[in-house]
Amino acid sequence: MIGHSAFPAEPWCLRETSLDLSMLAQTESLFSLSNGHLGLRGNLDEGEPNGLSGTYVNSVFEERPLPYAEAGYGDPESGQTVVNVTNGKIIRLLVDDEPFDVRYGRLLMHERVLDLRAGVLRRTAEWQSPAGRRVRIRSTRLVSLTQRAVAAIRYELEVIDRPVRIVLQSELVANEDVPTQEIDPRAAAVLRHPLESEQHDASGTRAVLIHRTRRSGLRIAAGMDHVLAAPADVELAIEATPDLARLGLITEAQPGEVLSVVKLLAYGRSSVRSRPALNDQICGALAAARATGWDDLLTEQRTWLDGFWEDADVLVEGDDAVQQAVRVALFHVLQAAVRAEGRPIPAKGLTGTGYDGHAFWDTETFVLPVLTYTAPAPVADALRWRHATLPAARARARQLGLAGAAFPWRTIDGRAASAYWPAGTAAFHINAGVATATVGYVEATGDEDFACREGLELLIETARLWRSLGHVDGEGWFRIDGVTGPDEYSAVADNNVYTNLMAQANLRAAAAAVLRWRERAAELGADADEAQSWADAAEAMFIPYDERLGVHEQSEGFTKHEPWDFEATRDADYPLLLHFPYFQLYRKQVVKQADLVLAMHLRGDAFTTAQKTRNFDYYERITVRDSSLSACTQAVLAAELGYLDLAYAYLREAALMDLDDLEQNTRDGLHLASLAGAWIALVMGFGGLRTHGGVLSFTPRLPSPLSRLHFNVRWHGARLGVNITGGRVSYELLDGSSVRLRHEGESIELIAGADVTLPLADIEPRLAPLQPRGRGLARPS
Amino acid sequence: MIGHSAFPAEPWCLRETSLDLSMLAQTESLFSLSNGHLGLRGNLDEGEPNGLSGTYVNSVFEERPLPYAEAGYGDPESGQTVVNVTNGKIIRLLVDDEPFDVRYGRLLMHERVLDLRAGVLRRTAEWQSPAGRRVRIRSTRLVSLTQRAVAAIRYELEVIDRPVRIVLQSELVANEDVPTQEIDPRAAAVLRHPLESEQHDASGTRAVLIHRTRRSGLRIAAGMDHVLAAPADVELAIEATPDLARLGLITEAQPGEVLSVVKLLAYGRSSVRSRPALNDQICGALAAARATGWDDLLTEQRTWLDGFWEDADVLVEGDDAVQQAVRVALFHVLQAAVRAEGRPIPAKGLTGTGYDGHAFWDTETFVLPVLTYTAPAPVADALRWRHATLPAARARARQLGLAGAAFPWRTIDGRAASAYWPAGTAAFHINAGVATATVGYVEATGDEDFACREGLELLIETARLWRSLGHVDGEGWFRIDGVTGPDEYSAVADNNVYTNLMAQANLRAAAAAVLRWRERAAELGADADEAQSWADAAEAMFIPYDERLGVHEQSEGFTKHEPWDFEATRDADYPLLLHFPYFQLYRKQVVKQADLVLAMHLRGDAFTTAQKTRNFDYYERITVRDSSLSACTQAVLAAELGYLDLAYAYLREAALMDLDDLEQNTRDGLHLASLAGAWIALVMGFGGLRTHGGVLSFTPRLPSPLSRLHFNVRWHGARLGVNITGGRVSYELLDGSSVRLRHEGESIELIAGADVTLPLADIEPRLAPLQPRGRGLARPS
Repeated sequence: MIGHSAFPAEPWCLRETSLDLSMLAQTESLFSLSNGHLGLRGNLDEGEPNGLSGTYVNSVFEERPLPYAEAGYGDPESGQTVVNVTNGKIIRLLVDDEPFDVRYGRLLMHERVLDLRAGVLRRTAEWQSPAGRRVRIRSTRLVSLTQRAVAAIRYELEVIDRPVRIVLQSELVANEDVPTQEIDPRAAAVLRHPLESEQHDASGTRAVLIHRTRRSGLRIAAGMDHVLAAPADVELAIEATPDLARLGLITEAQPGEVLSVVKLLAYGRSSVRSRPALNDQICGALAAARATGWDDLLTEQRTWLDGFWEDADVLVEGDDAVQQAVRVALFHVLQAAVRAEGRPIPAKGLTGTGYDGHAFWDTETFVLPVLTYTAPAPVADALRWRHATLPAARARARQLGLAGAAFPWRTIDGRAASAYWPAGTAAFHINAGVATATVGYVEATGDEDFACREGLELLIETARLWRSLGHVDGEGWFRIDGVTGPDEYSAVADNNVYTNLMAQANLRAAAAAVLRWRERAAELGADADEAQSWADAAEAMFIPYDERLGVHEQSEGFTKHEPWDFEATRDADYPLLLHFPYFQLYRKQVVKQADLVLAMHLRGDAFTTAQKTRNFDYYERITVRDSSLSACTQAVLAAELGYLDLAYAYLREAALMDLDDLEQNTRDGLHLASLAGAWIALVMGFGGLRTHGGVLSFTPRLPSPLSRLHFNVRWHGARLGVNITGGRVSYELLDGSSVRLRHEGESIELIAGADVTLPLADIEPRLAPLQPRGRGLARPS
Repeated sequence: MIGHSAFPAEPWCLRETSLDLSMLAQTESLFSLSNGHLGLRGNLDEGEPNGLSGTYVNSVFEERPLPYAEAGYGDPESGQTVVNVTNGKIIRLLVDDEPFDVRYGRLLMHERVLDLRAGVLRRTAEWQSPAGRRVRIRSTRLVSLTQRAVAAIRYELEVIDRPVRIVLQSELVANEDVPTQEIDPRAAAVLRHPLESEQHDASGTRAVLIHRTRRSGLRIAAGMDHVLAAPADVELAIEATPDLARLGLITEAQPGEVLSVVKLLAYGRSSVRSRPALNDQICGALAAARATGWDDLLTEQRTWLDGFWEDADVLVEGDDAVQQAVRVALFHVLQAAVRAEGRPIPAKGLTGTGYDGHAFWDTETFVLPVLTYTAPAPVADALRWRHATLPAARARARQLGLAGAAFPWRTIDGRAASAYWPAGTAAFHINAGVATATVGYVEATGDEDFACREGLELLIETARLWRSLGHVDGEGWFRIDGVTGPDEYSAVADNNVYTNLMAQANLRAAAAAVLRWRERAAELGADADEAQSWADAAEAMFIPYDERLGVHEQSEGFTKHEPWDFEATRDADYPLLLHFPYFQLYRKQVVKQADLVLAMHLRGDAFTTAQKTRNFDYYERITVRDSSLSACTQAVLAAELGYLDLAYAYLREAALMDLDDLEQNTRDGLHLASLAGAWIALVMGFGGLRTHGGVLSFTPRLPSPLSRLHFNVRWHGARLGVNITGGRVSYELLDGSSVRLRHEGESIELIAGADVTLPLADIEPRLAPLQPRGRGLARPS
């Protein structure tokens, strides 16, 4: 793990036992707290040093100009960048007028623990000031999963050997200086101090700052209140200026006494509500949190998480690191989604500014499936967000000359924000991703209310897009030309197998939905004739296949391209996109991330096992995994094809992506989709979970290092436990009356109280294919 | 023509009989004077009004940042933009202290004449000032074809009815305010006042200003001197400031007397020479011009042009507009090239700032072939410029992971300056264009000195590029994947037929050249083995062909793409690139400009006549001619295939592109390649000139509107006259002793003094294919 020795593998927490300042940005990401609405990076209480100070409210972004040296019609003119909002985490401490700063004096001990069951970040530090005063600090931070607007910090201070004069300063700070990676000076200027003050109030122990983003016009309010428990007299002073509110607390602290401050924070945003309305909302949230009190905030948090873990936990015996990693992963996935409520789930959640805070296809393709089987409510919310962006997606489709809706490759508010169209606009497969997540959610939950409203409309509009994007050629094939699949080392190619198969499923699902919800479909202007035209297109879908090699072409012509020269590629040349022009990457056989292999996962029904084996062997040799969105998919197919050791290695790569900073950009935020990939590799890989045709099925396997794998699956309100150990798998119904499933292709009716235990299928050991030279498997700690 | 009635069709001049201010920018382009080193737009003497004030010295450019919202490895960081240098054209006039300005007072007459034989621009104006004073102005402007650094203006003034106090101000003005189309404010700032003063001197009647461009560090010097012929006393004053030098002349003019000023101008540039050296060079040029004197400057100019027209003139009887147009075209092509001497020939010559003043593939592919057969010396110069940029082209190839040299898609100084790689870097065919021009020049002139030096190295380095760009696939074909051909409505496709056929010829020519010049080749590291590898690649070149349709695919898979919906495309939607995203253009069957059809012209030997006919019919239906580089090529193939009316229509479109402003951007400068296209359409189209395999051949045809077509061709120092009229063609040897040629495939030995007259072949009348709806043939005046 990052800094290895400092992170012991513990089953229910992430513990850092000493502070490594060179790893600060990475640990801030890992120690982020969020509820999907509000996100706090794990910055130190005293504000600095920091790797990247970060406080994010979902969908608070600023618009910035997108420059083009040679612009084309339809290039988006305006980009979107997540904004670091008012920082309420800061509690500065002066010890006899010397500021507590870990860079000065002596840090006698420092520990941070992310507690996955309590849902809090705990910090303990003992520090000796340059003048020799010793203090002990304990802080506990939470972002409430039950009170959406609220975060809270309990800050406890104890002086150790002699009386000390203490000053605490609890602050709200807007427009902090944060590093920008913008090259364009106009964009950098826009993002430097993005918040314009509208209100600043302070009285008693409470203060509120309200700002507005200059261009995007979003109003953001932050408030703080405090509850003190001080053993001695305390002098308080509160003040507010446009970008700073500060509660000052001065006291004389005696050894052995504990000064405790609970800082309550509330955040709100709106693009439409007035300043007074937002002010009231913040004050109300603070009052409610104050009424709840610190202890009950903690209790609510733990109770909520108990319920989550009961559904979602995965037991992994035999690999403590993976056990810890999958729980950390589930915790962060949950945090990113749970209270997003009609806002996007960005690629980095609310843990950093990577990818400008944009949401991509990976939300629907990697994150939502995990939640669908573990905590499905946020899935419907996330898809409702996509649904709410339909007007922008329809407008974009019209601009591109297409029917239906064209969801943007990257966005915060639903409008397209990609400046490089071959890897943006052309990646239409995101639309099938939205449709597939919709189908998956409805299949798993039976949520008919969602299905016939947002679900139906999402399916219809995406099907219309595909119907207009493809055409029937002279030989009767339905072709989708000039698009980009998941592999970003190819672009603008004809008949990408992944895209075509996903579009095929999208078209079929939409056709079925129109027939299922005829009246509602009629309101959306879709009838049986239109549904038939989608079904016809799906039937005629062209899937390129290289007869000579006996493998599918990732896109038409792909297998005739020049093989990448891996022998001549040095280790330092990875990731390739930083050392070779797109021109070369696109025209050669080199794959950044699972593309055809992802098709074999999500559309496994469209391939024979022999095809899967040949395809996997072929593409494995040329897939360099320069993306974090690859290892988990390779794990799934490797497991399915019996390469259990390979699958296990990929599981570890996916699970430890951020804990070991394998992509060396965890500093910018966590890779949510790769975190989700830890679950995917375990449950869809070794569990063999599939739902092709709406049928829940399993093909369980256990790699030799593991002695047990246990996971739960929610299915139509029921909860199913799957326990793989000792050469057998047990299926148990935990909630609900009965579930029909398939084990190794055989149908089983599972009834409450009657476990079914079956032997695992025999796997014939086979030699796994090799990875490209220089891109062998990472061996995470 | 522009303004139609104002431009009578005259055989040897371009005459504008009244001034239309709304057409000023266009006429400034058409009335440009240049010698390839120095270019003066046809701005009015008094400086304003103007459409675009322009004075250009070849290769004086400024660097500017190229912004990318999402940058990729290898994207050029720095762009290049031609700079408007010190304006020496300005002669302001005050008539009793009222400035002569055609927008005020009354313009009683105004005529401008570009005299194609004298090589001058003449202007005559009669003007009545707001106070009622009448003056007559005659100016004659030349840019010397014989004294490279020199331009001159004779300015004559006559007052008409009563004595008038006259002030003339003859100026050099640097850093004029000119409109910029830069969207990026950084780039606009860089280009606003690009010249930094280094020296300003004035004494007597002479002044010199020396500047340096801020970023590119190019030194540019401009000087003026004056010769006066005044009937009365004249008061003179000269002064210089960093950006302005001015000679003031005050006199009392009597009716009937003519005040005459000859303004001599000299320009020099250097990236290496010192300020004193450049200053001396300018003063020397001015002294030489003064010694020559106005009359002899005129005489030299006419004598030089007499020689040019004797070689290059094309006689067209039956269409006065085309007769005029082809001479205007040849004049401007000559002007752009003749004294460029080791500098590029930009797409707009030195007539405007269009395309930032960059040179593209069209120089080698359209402009140089015309000069090769009419005035070959500048062709060697132009190719020597390419040769001089080999270090940059080799470095670019290395950066792209390729061998040999990768010439830039657009450049001024030889470094790549394209910000959009799918239509820049990927357009590798420019390398074959350089090689083809090299082969064509050597074949036509027999210039062995050039052939074994620059020519050989250009062929070797381009062949090496192709060998490394392509690869042999599993079936033994040599494939060139992921490149962009001439048609800019497709990009990054596999096995573009044009590119592959041109690369094939390039590889073969290089292999032959290495065997021919073994010793010199060995110095360049090329041996027979390497030559064999090129020959092998050429032999195995993959040429995609659609067996079902019986036509060549422009690129692999092209004919399976969705046809463009021309029925749904409105007239206002053209040019398509301004109204549709590249995403849509690239994936559909719609062609911006001749691509496969250009292949059938330049590699006509690689197609059967039946293939040519089917291909032409197929591509004609989908070619929208949104580029000026299309009509002339379509004319050539239409003529070859017997569609004489269609060929004639395309001839007119090409020939009148700028005279009728068909692309509506003549304001930014002339379309040099389309001007060259007038000659190409006549000589290669109706004359049927081809040199496949180094054999000079003709297939003469005459479209019904023309009664006679006569042109000359230079071939190995000989000069051949071809006269087509009255159903017959006569071949006559004007210089030289004998030439072997082919007429309709039959070999003829032409000997001095023995004309050969043959009947024209019978052309079976056939129905020409239709153009896309909405893109029928332009009917120029």
